[in-house]
This record gives sequence, structure tokens and C-alpha cells, in this order.
Amino acid sequence: MSGRSRETTTPSRGMTLWLTGLPCAGKTTIAQGLFEALRARGQAVELLDGDEIRKEFSAGVGFSREERCAHLRRVGFLCRLLTKHGVTVIAAFVSPYRETRDDARRMVGDGFAEIFVDTPLAECIRRDVKGMYRRALAGEIRQFTGISDPYEPPLAPELTLRTMEHSVEECVNQVLELTDSRMSLGRVGS
Amino acid sequence: MSGRSRETTTPSRGMTLWLTGLPCAGKTTIAQGLFEALRARGQAVELLDGDEIRKEFSAGVGFSREERCAHLRRVGFLCRLLTKHGVTVIAAFVSPYRETRDDARRMVGDGFAEIFVDTPLAECIRRDVKGMYRRALAGEIRQFTGISDPYEPPLAPELTLRTMEHSVEECVNQVLELTDSRMSLGRVGS
Repeated sequence: MSGRSRETTTPSRGMTLWLTGLPCAGKTTIAQGLFEALRARGQAVELLDGDEIRKEFSAGVGFSREERCAHLRRVGFLCRLLTKHGVTVIAAFVSPYRETRDDARRMVGDGFAEIFVDTPLAECIRRDVKGMYRRALAGEIRQFTGISDPYEPPLAPELTLRTMEHSVEECVNQVLELTDSRMSLGRVGS
Repeated sequence: MSGRSRETTTPSRGMTLWLTGLPCAGKTTIAQGLFEALRARGQAVELLDGDEIRKEFSAGVGFSREERCAHLRRVGFLCRLLTKHGVTVIAAFVSPYRETRDDARRMVGDGFAEIFVDTPLAECIRRDVKGMYRRALAGEIRQFTGISDPYEPPLAPELTLRTMEHSVEECVNQVLELTDSRMSLGRVGS
């Protein structure tokens, strides 16, 4: 509103920044930091967080492979439309299967970036923010990713965030660098 | 791109134009005309059409009251996010239950307008674009709205389009008048 900035890093087109990783890997924390950083830049940004989205968008949907895939296909569709209309979408989902992440990539197209929040299982179990690992390890939760359900790490993500080596702020900055480089490269170099 | 228009009717905020009515009432035809008209104005616009959305977004979802409602709640969520980011969403769904339409209204908030595509059942049966009424009347399709499943007409829609009395173009213009008046009224007068 108060004149144009000297350097325009704001994208004219949207993106989908898809954060995948084990429960408690740090997806939500990084996603929230990223959301604030992008909003501070004046970018149209939307945060879709797995736990929240399950309440509002996919109530009652279970955790079988089939249900997870159907759920994430709908999320992918949501990302596609928002990205198309210039929004930067931060999608933070365990999204354990390569196939469903590839589906999302196909749906969104050019603007998609897969970001692997890479935290070792032992560290996720140590953090156990909501006590879910404890319950899963006690056999109280079935189909819990990392314990009783598989997690397929990305084979060629656009970015890997190693949360054991870097702070949240550093991880957020790594994602911002990615978005900036994709903007300046017109997304050819992804 | 080529300078500013003299009169700005383009909204800074989005809207959801929710078209409801019996199968073959004319929702898709009006929605498509509306989509072209809004796009020609340079507006960010998205068309969500029931039949198409069921393929891409809600594959395998059935037609029981419960499934219809869950499906339309997800569509409502989609409308909410797009509307929030300045898109004019045209949602064309039979959406037979008042409750689910009211859910969508609540989710979207201010920018929501319910538009009743009011075509008598006899005329819809006469049109029967895809031969579905014939099959429903022969008992081959269960839960077909208007025949073997209820349709609850809106009690207080923002607009009613009587397709027996008005051409498609006239109906489209009536919706455009609604969007313009809501824009100029800052949506107070809805």
C-alpha cells in the first residue's frame, strides 16, 4: 500500500510447499514459522496442517492406506486450486506414502515443492509432543506412522530439513531460500 | 495491464455464488455463462461443478444424506479458502438439504450467496439431459433427487432464477447484478 518495494520477491504465481515427515518431526512448528515469515512479506499464504485439516475437512476419515490416500488427494486438489490463484500453500502432513505425495505433485504441477522434515525416529519418540508415540508403542493406537505403519522417505525432495542440525529459524530460512530461488528461476530449476 | 478501468467493479474480496437446484434445473449452464462473464471482467474466478468435482475431489462418495453432507462440507471448506483469498467461486451443486447449504454459508461467511435455480420438476424431467430421470423413474437409480430423494428448496436465497421465464443470458445477468450490488454495498445489504 505504501509504495512498491525495491526488490520484488513476491511471487505472481502461487506455490505448494509440502512438508512431509514422521509425527513430531517438527512439521507444524516449521510450517507456522514459515507462515509468519511469508505473511510478513505480504504474500497470500495459507497453512494447511494435518491435525487441523482432519477436524475441519476430513472428519471421520481413518488412517488406513486407502483412507489416507483419499484424504490427501482431496488436500492435493485444494492445494492445486489455491496455488493456481496465486496463494502460497504450506501443507504440513505426515503423508507417509510416496504415491500420494506424487499424486499431490501431479495435481499441483509446477508450483509444487516436496520438503522432507528429516528427524530420526528416536528423536521423534523422545519429543512425543502429544504422547502419541507412547500410546502407539503400548499398542493403544493402530496404524501409527513410524511404529505400526510405514513411512516412505522422499527419494528426490526439493529440500531436506535436518532438524537435529538446524534450528527452526534456520529451517524456515532454508525454505525461504528455496521459494526465492524458484521465483527467480521461474521454477525451471526445481 | 493496460491501465486502470474507469469504473472498478472487480471485487477486492472473493465471493461464493452457490447455485442449488434439481438435476437438470440449469445450474451448470448458468454457472458456465457466469464463469465466462466474470473471467471476461478480469476477475479471479473458479467454477466448482458437482459432476466434475465428484470425479476429482470426491471419487467414490455416494448419495446418502450423510455422504452428500460430508462431501458438501468439504466443498464448503474449499469455497471458504478460495473466497478468503479473493476468488469468486461458482459452486453448482444439487445440494438438496438446507442444513448442508447453511453449513456452507456459515463456513464461507460474508461472501456467501445462495442462488436457487428454480425449475419445476416436470420441466427438469422433460429436459433430462443425461437420461438420469428416465432411469430414476424406472427405479434403476436410487437416491435420485426429485424422484426418490428429497429436495428442500431454499427459504431465503439471495436470488431465485426462474429458468422457465428467463433465458440463460438473463439469468447470468441477474447474478452479475447481485454481485455488483453486494460489492457496492460492501455486502451489508445481503
